[in-house]
Amino acid sequence: MSPIGVPLGGQSMQLPDVDYKLTNNETKDQAALKRRGSVRLSSEEELVLKSLRVLIADLCQQFGGGHPGGAMGMAAIGVALWKYVMRYAPHDPDWINRDRFVLSNGHTCLFQYCFLHLTGYKTMTFEQLKSYHSDQTDSLCPGHPEIEHEGIEVTTAGPLGQGIANAVGLAMASKHLAARFNRPGFNVVSDHIWCMVGDACLQEGVGLEAISFAGHMRLNNLTVIYDNNQITCDGPVSLTNTEDINAKMRACGWNVVEISDGCWDVGAITQTLEASRRSPLPTFVICHTVIGVDTAVAGDAVAHGAALGSETVMSLKRLYGFDPERRYIIPDTVRDFFSGLPSQGESLVAEWNQTLQRYSQAYPDLAEEYARRMEGDLPDNWESLIPDAFPSKPTPTRAASGLVFSPLAERLDQFMVGTADLAPSVYMSWKSKEDFEPPCLGTGSYSGRFIHYGVREHAMAAISNGLAAYHPGIFIPVTSSFFMFYLYAAPAVRMGALQHLQIIHAATHDSIGMGEDGPTHQPIELAALYRAMPNLLYIRPGDSEETAGAWIEAIKARHTSSIISTSRHALPQLTGLAKRTGVAKGAYILEEVTGTADLTLIGVGAELNLAISVAAELRSSHGLKVRTVSFPCQRLFEAQPRGYQREVLQRQSGVPVVVIEAYAANGWERYADAAVCMSTNRFGKSLPGPKAYEYFGFDVPSIVARVRGYLEDLRVDPDLKHDFVELTYAKTDG
Amino acid sequence: MSPIGVPLGGQSMQLPDVDYKLTNNETKDQAALKRRGSVRLSSEEELVLKSLRVLIADLCQQFGGGHPGGAMGMAAIGVALWKYVMRYAPHDPDWINRDRFVLSNGHTCLFQYCFLHLTGYKTMTFEQLKSYHSDQTDSLCPGHPEIEHEGIEVTTAGPLGQGIANAVGLAMASKHLAARFNRPGFNVVSDHIWCMVGDACLQEGVGLEAISFAGHMRLNNLTVIYDNNQITCDGPVSLTNTEDINAKMRACGWNVVEISDGCWDVGAITQTLEASRRSPLPTFVICHTVIGVDTAVAGDAVAHGAALGSETVMSLKRLYGFDPERRYIIPDTVRDFFSGLPSQGESLVAEWNQTLQRYSQAYPDLAEEYARRMEGDLPDNWESLIPDAFPSKPTPTRAASGLVFSPLAERLDQFMVGTADLAPSVYMSWKSKEDFEPPCLGTGSYSGRFIHYGVREHAMAAISNGLAAYHPGIFIPVTSSFFMFYLYAAPAVRMGALQHLQIIHAATHDSIGMGEDGPTHQPIELAALYRAMPNLLYIRPGDSEETAGAWIEAIKARHTSSIISTSRHALPQLTGLAKRTGVAKGAYILEEVTGTADLTLIGVGAELNLAISVAAELRSSHGLKVRTVSFPCQRLFEAQPRGYQREVLQRQSGVPVVVIEAYAANGWERYADAAVCMSTNRFGKSLPGPKAYEYFGFDVPSIVARVRGYLEDLRVDPDLKHDFVELTYAKTDG
Repeated sequence: MSPIGVPLGGQSMQLPDVDYKLTNNETKDQAALKRRGSVRLSSEEELVLKSLRVLIADLCQQFGGGHPGGAMGMAAIGVALWKYVMRYAPHDPDWINRDRFVLSNGHTCLFQYCFLHLTGYKTMTFEQLKSYHSDQTDSLCPGHPEIEHEGIEVTTAGPLGQGIANAVGLAMASKHLAARFNRPGFNVVSDHIWCMVGDACLQEGVGLEAISFAGHMRLNNLTVIYDNNQITCDGPVSLTNTEDINAKMRACGWNVVEISDGCWDVGAITQTLEASRRSPLPTFVICHTVIGVDTAVAGDAVAHGAALGSETVMSLKRLYGFDPERRYIIPDTVRDFFSGLPSQGESLVAEWNQTLQRYSQAYPDLAEEYARRMEGDLPDNWESLIPDAFPSKPTPTRAASGLVFSPLAERLDQFMVGTADLAPSVYMSWKSKEDFEPPCLGTGSYSGRFIHYGVREHAMAAISNGLAAYHPGIFIPVTSSFFMFYLYAAPAVRMGALQHLQIIHAATHDSIGMGEDGPTHQPIELAALYRAMPNLLYIRPGDSEETAGAWIEAIKARHTSSIISTSRHALPQLTGLAKRTGVAKGAYILEEVTGTADLTLIGVGAELNLAISVAAELRSSHGLKVRTVSFPCQRLFEAQPRGYQREVLQRQSGVPVVVIEAYAANGWERYADAAVCMSTNRFGKSLPGPKAYEYFGFDVPSIVARVRGYLEDLRVDPDLKHDFVELTYAKTDG
Repeated sequence: MSPIGVPLGGQSMQLPDVDYKLTNNETKDQAALKRRGSVRLSSEEELVLKSLRVLIADLCQQFGGGHPGGAMGMAAIGVALWKYVMRYAPHDPDWINRDRFVLSNGHTCLFQYCFLHLTGYKTMTFEQLKSYHSDQTDSLCPGHPEIEHEGIEVTTAGPLGQGIANAVGLAMASKHLAARFNRPGFNVVSDHIWCMVGDACLQEGVGLEAISFAGHMRLNNLTVIYDNNQITCDGPVSLTNTEDINAKMRACGWNVVEISDGCWDVGAITQTLEASRRSPLPTFVICHTVIGVDTAVAGDAVAHGAALGSETVMSLKRLYGFDPERRYIIPDTVRDFFSGLPSQGESLVAEWNQTLQRYSQAYPDLAEEYARRMEGDLPDNWESLIPDAFPSKPTPTRAASGLVFSPLAERLDQFMVGTADLAPSVYMSWKSKEDFEPPCLGTGSYSGRFIHYGVREHAMAAISNGLAAYHPGIFIPVTSSFFMFYLYAAPAVRMGALQHLQIIHAATHDSIGMGEDGPTHQPIELAALYRAMPNLLYIRPGDSEETAGAWIEAIKARHTSSIISTSRHALPQLTGLAKRTGVAKGAYILEEVTGTADLTLIGVGAELNLAISVAAELRSSHGLKVRTVSFPCQRLFEAQPRGYQREVLQRQSGVPVVVIEAYAANGWERYADAAVCMSTNRFGKSLPGPKAYEYFGFDVPSIVARVRGYLEDLRVDPDLKHDFVELTYAKTDG
């Protein structure tokens, strides 16, 4: 029996029963770790490791770039994972019960690409492997792993620390499904999550947040393997980090194991990883390795991010007994070593299918529900769960958001809803909600769908990416916090959009109207980021009805992330004007005029009602013909035909357009000639909400005066039509 | 003698010599902590604590809002700090050798405001104290502490974890100055940094990064006090965090001490804080407290962020023997308790002035240098240190940045330069540089000015804010990383801009030209954020000469943060066209035409040279009259008179303007009619730089074709002039 529990053809490696849990004995001279007498390594495995290292060196040398050193150092870890430990099926890469592997130190991607090739992933041909760092536009070997390709679970680093947080999300997804669907004797969901990290992922804040959270959640289906080579770009890790990582991880609630020779000790690594499946805690395996092992630059930062140089590569080949003149050699023994994995994977799938079949007989309803969930679709009638109408009283859109969402969350198990310690403020709870918590704490269970993330906005978003990446459509993660704090979460929000994952971010307190908390909380410029971010809908609804529209669009966008941006303060219902269907088009006409208009006023989100009131005042007191447009989402409007866009804005007819929004105006120039906006010369101010609006000139008399002034300026200087004019409140700018 | 080392008038509290370093004994029932027999507290102090709690409750009740619970729980800590431990001078709040206090859990600001009032800060009058949460626009008591006001060192939270990172920066500033200027017998620089944190700062990634870094740096002039009340907005901390914080902090290299009754044990707190001055490591004091202590909501999350309610406040008053009907009472005993602090502060300043005077005699040169540094000004001739000219060969602007900056860094001690583990890539080093490192590691010293931050972009920026906040103008912190990773750092970049701190962020690899690392590294939308961010200059120079201009503008902006955004790849020198003085105006004409132009082309940063080449091709092969404009900085251009803006853009004459930049176009609509840009439908792609440009249509033939197509479309449909048109490369958009 192999560690993965099924017979391996002819394989009979015996692992001695040795305790490999070492105490915290950081080895200073890591080069001395090589080839210790105690290392358990077959001659076959030794050739595999050498061949992989030479191959990786060749592949970086080919186009003179890439990240060779880490990938070379990690080869033995890869053999343990892909040959002995992970349960997966190369020819059925999306098998739902597969173990998931996340390469959080994504720059070492050649590591993963090589194993995907050797273990038989069909798309990862040898020619593909050689396209690494080439100018082939159809390469499956980009500089960092990308989710679109077979065998890659999430797009990782570059922005370091994301991967480990994604892995936490994958582990939570698995835990949740196991809690929901497994029954005694039927481990329908039994996958394990494996994650490689480098030194950097353990320095980045998002990684540290995720580590603390995973420990709290007792995610014992997660094993993180630390490629501890003590080298980063700037040199030895000791330049920047001298903490006791072993003790730190234990303090965070992790099971910690050390492997003294991570470069060669395949036996110890295999045994440790396999044992981690039975840990009551998440496991952190510290593998001491040497970057660029066995080369002239072993243990040196220069081995990290550049080709090693042809002389160094040739020396390595000589050392390993390879022909220095030949490149891209994979000995037959090496191919044979991995050749049984596809059929082994098929056996695993077949075995699981049998389990599933028995499960269907034993628990037909559950099995049916499971099958439905795996389809990834929402029930056809989901939209009907949203209220048709809302109370007519003024309502904060954050509260409206709760009214819209709670019946959905109540009924649809797809929603995994979290908050970064703002549960009382974000209205994302629902009646029957149960908290996602480890059962041992007595405050919830893994069946729960409400996640208290703590004050960890960044990890919240990155973990949500992992939840969504577990299986297409199976979860719609919802995050929630104040809008301003989505600047903390931004790198992970971006990664979600980049991976075409559907995450809905419920962002409240989205204007200066949030009040007393002041400039550190008041978003001025943040919308500019999210309006420019590809594959993300930033939606600012103006009342309860538009909030329904915002949720509908966010839920319909199955491959796009959304931010639903709502107010802390109560907004009047624009009954008869605001339409949820209008949100779908990004912008729509609220009030039209007959004949030629004098002005089009655009209102947005929490300031939409101001536009209506200003228009009314300009009509009644000043006799102007004013159109009004609601504009909740620029991205959705951009997707409309040009004809519709022109009909809404009517700029072709020369009618001036003024937008009213309490943000920096950047980006509105596309749709308007002038803006009643916040000046980019200053941030907000701590004042009660209504007073903050007034302070920055967002009250009807002040806006009316400035808009009239602008129309007069236009009359005097028609050239002004070619300038975008910020109608900020001059008194307070400074 | 008091713990602060000078006689206190009549004060004779004797502290028993007890070891208060407890083992890690988390108390489950924190309510039971109250008033233990072993607590050291005088009756005078007891009245102070009670009065403070009642006052805080009243101040929140006044306008029905605010954060009472934490501030009430922390009162004893405040007494220890402001009465006994900190060295400061209320009537000389900017005394340079003062101890600094940072309230990282800034929502508890009433805590700080009350002590500033009681200890005699002149601006913090009783009337001001009562303006908390009022609609007074001149309030000095905003919802979170703001740097502009006396006694406040940095603007904090809201965005949690920033304050502790700022405190690390303050401690580094002090360490550095001490290493530079102190001499045996002359501790000219001897201030200590004190920082309060709540549970949240210890969950946020930026806080965790800063903690790890401070431990590495052995910043023993930093004491962090943890208001461990085990409550956050969502409820008990145990919902989200069950780690062993004591062990975790020790693992990070901190001295950890616990105080079991942080609500009352003024004696233990005082002794522990005072002892922390002599620790060889940074000290973390875990104060077990009770949120909303002694009220009906003690230990409950509802005590966190809302007024307690008048009945609860009255009950507290009854319990404490106060008249429940009277509000805002500060007994004379309490006022007397603090009344000696201003004169005590004056003594401290006088004593320090004497030290300084003796120092001036013993070390006249050093003293003169010290005095010069404290002025905060740069030498008049700094600009002359920048090269007049640059090599004519194509040069990456990141390398040009090094050519510009290294002579400045070499000569001007104001620059504290850091990198988030990208030293080899960002060119921010200089010949004689020494690393800022703790001397015990043997790799540098506190005199060093080059900081290896590790892979901690967020902490790098937040710590830099602390460096800059230490004393006006004394440091110009420089950070460096890839531009894309400034999304990780964004919350701290924002806090720097918000506080009018001069930080220069050297951001490299700023376009798809950065190449193989792929979409996770390629900024598409990030510039939109920074162009909209108040008080920040986002500058993209187009060649070496403009890079000089970018640095000049960033250095001149003494109260503004800047991002200098440079290319990984070599850019041609636009000799005779590009001008460093042009950068000062944000945009300027490179090539003018006689008569009416057919087109104005705007080029930006790494794509500026493309605009020149495209213009040349449109002239030579298509006979068009094309103007070209370089546009490195929108914010600087906005500051120009309208006349200059119109002269540069000439939109009034109806000449179409097309901008070329490999970013999302958002924001360029203000200056152009169309953009050769990245589509916001997708992120970048992993390809070698030149190939990536080509893939997205950023090559001369492709741009020429699209610009010509646009001009033709304009001819056919003049209404198109009112639409902003994205000339993205259709083939690759998906």
